[in-house]
Amino acid sequence: MDDIKAYIAENRERFIEELIELLKIPTISADSAFSQDIYNGAEAISKALSDAGCDVVEICETKGYPIVYGEKTIDPSLPTVLVYGHYDVQPPDPLELWDSPPFEPTIRTNELHPQGAIFARGASDDKGQVYMHVKALEFMVRKNLLPCNVKFMIEGEEEVGSESLSDFVRENHDKLANDIILISDTGMIANDIPSITTGLRGLSYVEVEVMGPNRDLHSGLYGGAVANPINILAKMIASLHDENKHITIPGFYDKVVELSEEERAAMAKAPFDLEAYKNALDIDSVYGEKTYTTNERNSIRPTLDVNGIWGGYTGEGAKTVIPSKAHAKISMRLVPDQDWHEITDLFSKHFEQIAPPGVRVKVTPHHGGESYVTPIDSIGYQAASKAYETTFGKVPVPKRNGGSIPIVALFEKELGTKSILMGFGLDSNAIHSPNEHFGIWNFLKGIETIPYFYKYYSEMMK
Amino acid sequence: MDDIKAYIAENRERFIEELIELLKIPTISADSAFSQDIYNGAEAISKALSDAGCDVVEICETKGYPIVYGEKTIDPSLPTVLVYGHYDVQPPDPLELWDSPPFEPTIRTNELHPQGAIFARGASDDKGQVYMHVKALEFMVRKNLLPCNVKFMIEGEEEVGSESLSDFVRENHDKLANDIILISDTGMIANDIPSITTGLRGLSYVEVEVMGPNRDLHSGLYGGAVANPINILAKMIASLHDENKHITIPGFYDKVVELSEEERAAMAKAPFDLEAYKNALDIDSVYGEKTYTTNERNSIRPTLDVNGIWGGYTGEGAKTVIPSKAHAKISMRLVPDQDWHEITDLFSKHFEQIAPPGVRVKVTPHHGGESYVTPIDSIGYQAASKAYETTFGKVPVPKRNGGSIPIVALFEKELGTKSILMGFGLDSNAIHSPNEHFGIWNFLKGIETIPYFYKYYSEMMK
Repeated sequence: MDDIKAYIAENRERFIEELIELLKIPTISADSAFSQDIYNGAEAISKALSDAGCDVVEICETKGYPIVYGEKTIDPSLPTVLVYGHYDVQPPDPLELWDSPPFEPTIRTNELHPQGAIFARGASDDKGQVYMHVKALEFMVRKNLLPCNVKFMIEGEEEVGSESLSDFVRENHDKLANDIILISDTGMIANDIPSITTGLRGLSYVEVEVMGPNRDLHSGLYGGAVANPINILAKMIASLHDENKHITIPGFYDKVVELSEEERAAMAKAPFDLEAYKNALDIDSVYGEKTYTTNERNSIRPTLDVNGIWGGYTGEGAKTVIPSKAHAKISMRLVPDQDWHEITDLFSKHFEQIAPPGVRVKVTPHHGGESYVTPIDSIGYQAASKAYETTFGKVPVPKRNGGSIPIVALFEKELGTKSILMGFGLDSNAIHSPNEHFGIWNFLKGIETIPYFYKYYSEMMK
Repeated sequence: MDDIKAYIAENRERFIEELIELLKIPTISADSAFSQDIYNGAEAISKALSDAGCDVVEICETKGYPIVYGEKTIDPSLPTVLVYGHYDVQPPDPLELWDSPPFEPTIRTNELHPQGAIFARGASDDKGQVYMHVKALEFMVRKNLLPCNVKFMIEGEEEVGSESLSDFVRENHDKLANDIILISDTGMIANDIPSITTGLRGLSYVEVEVMGPNRDLHSGLYGGAVANPINILAKMIASLHDENKHITIPGFYDKVVELSEEERAAMAKAPFDLEAYKNALDIDSVYGEKTYTTNERNSIRPTLDVNGIWGGYTGEGAKTVIPSKAHAKISMRLVPDQDWHEITDLFSKHFEQIAPPGVRVKVTPHHGGESYVTPIDSIGYQAASKAYETTFGKVPVPKRNGGSIPIVALFEKELGTKSILMGFGLDSNAIHSPNEHFGIWNFLKGIETIPYFYKYYSEMMK
């Protein structure tokens, strides 16, 4: 395995060039205008897997976007690692805030990335991190160092709820049979503080519509006398949190597993600099649920955030209108043992119930997923920890992550195996934001670290 | 004057055709993309005034859009009527709710308009109502029946705050000298219940911006730990009304003139059918300030309405983002003796003050205007009342209107004369909404009634 450093040094420019080509494809799953690009993205991933040494590569059609499946079996009696990732990306808006176009990857250096970072939508989430696994496989196959079997399952709907993947997993237990699932779709604390994600939050994403009068009204003639859907929507949203920033939906917290004081004390030991956090976001204060720290609020506590709101006149200048309708997209991050279907139901019932007379309300669930926790005493976690220790020179910190990869809980339920979340990105990578990027150092460090996971995992499974 | 009926019958088709041509020009003052159309609109009004018999017609340039001035002086010793109106229109969005394109005027009949109505943006507000005055002048000039002098002042910025007109009025006291101002930019209760507007609400229109983190954030990684500008904006907007729907801005009601029980009892006698009102809007309940009726809420009470709101991801599908910023356009309708500058200041200070730590707030005033009341014992009102009585066969009802024509209070302050608000539209005309229209019956009835105002006013002023 120690050849990996030399292999990376030899192939560094090619690896970067290949990733840049992949990042040029605008695989935006949320917007059907980019449908053909998604198919082109699947083709590109499929070719990359073949080139890296997979014996079997399939583009599996679904009722949504295709799943790219790849396989390299060296001996059926050896363990099998299933690599999961996604080739779809978040929409890049607001476009005007990008310093370079989101689908014209550009390398720039900054303080955190003196070796340069690739700026492009999907650079970190998740094409760049998927591509580390492809190149790690290439190394192991070419150097004849692959110590076990490997399968790839790279989907195109992660950013919109992985609906087709859920069906695919349910229907393909044999094909996807594995001993451990390996995922790089999270980050680590810092380049000098490696960490492994041990938990993910669940998600319930809904869209709400508040409907008032049957047409837009003149705010002079009707103002004050009829319910204004925007004012009502604001009032309803505001009422979803109390003065302590607790969520007010009845039953919302019923199944939340509270951490013990010991667990919270252990969490509090993870390196964290509140001033640096505030400075990085240019905010004068953090904001959140009373009696919890920032790191607790964004990982072990459930949340409710409005992700988008719109209604009435939003153009230049002034229009004195009371709109007929107002809308919002709302997501809730969930923690063990909240059930996302149940939370979606609780939200819908509550939101409909608090609508005042004079308006009607419609709640449309978008998608969701369960939360997930990885035990740190498992072989998978230990192998990953040892791999990071080998290449970073430090034992990685176990860390709960506030994000959601809804499919991870389903993998465990359907395939019976745990997922190891080996992320190499940073929180500052601006995933889902303008100027998303992925450090070249991080990209290459991922390629370097992954083969050691295979090595240690195979050794520990013997 | 009794020739007017025959004159209308002879020229009916021409009048409608001319108005339709005028309505084809998209004179949207709120959107600078339509700047050239505004100038074309001014040209069209100028030509119409010349054709109708004005001796002097000028397109007066301003620092904004031009004001069209027209004049017909028959004898300087006679009284002068100044007609005010506007040729600019509200933006037509949302376009998809129009049954025919907003700038392709279409005549359709419906229950309220068996003779047909012209559907187009500006049909009622205010091109159609301005054009009644132009055609009434044409009749009086051609038949040599004009009993006094007349001036026209038709502006192009009414829908965005009449800023240039304010300067124009301040700088042209002599040019605009008059005995009474005549305005048709309001409506009446119903075709069989004529009414004259005796009051207008003032207006303060502001835009607010709530700024949180310096970039859009991933709602998983940051959700729950930083202030979400949309949630905060919703909370701040919600807090602007209390549980009785009173506005909570400190000092907001300090100068409001409360009507006496007698005045409220007199108002309550105006014909009003709450069930029909609710049915027309397809709402199950009205909504507004406790202890006031619907007709009080929309005329003698101040209000606060959000006219537009936007922030975060508003496209197709789902995006799990905490946006950096959220925005709203907010208007307040004001009543005597609220001062719009003072209210704008009170709003701004309050809104900035209630922003929680973790966000910054910016309030940008758009425009505003004072409220206005016309005394019904004035000669101007009495002449208008008699004119309606002559052509409708009924004494019109005096009625306070919830809308705002900010310039009317300024006219009184600068020119020292009262404005008579002779509107011929209906509340159902959908001004500021999709499918704005103006009944052909109403258009022609206006042309018929206006010459009688000139007649009675001149007689009473002798």
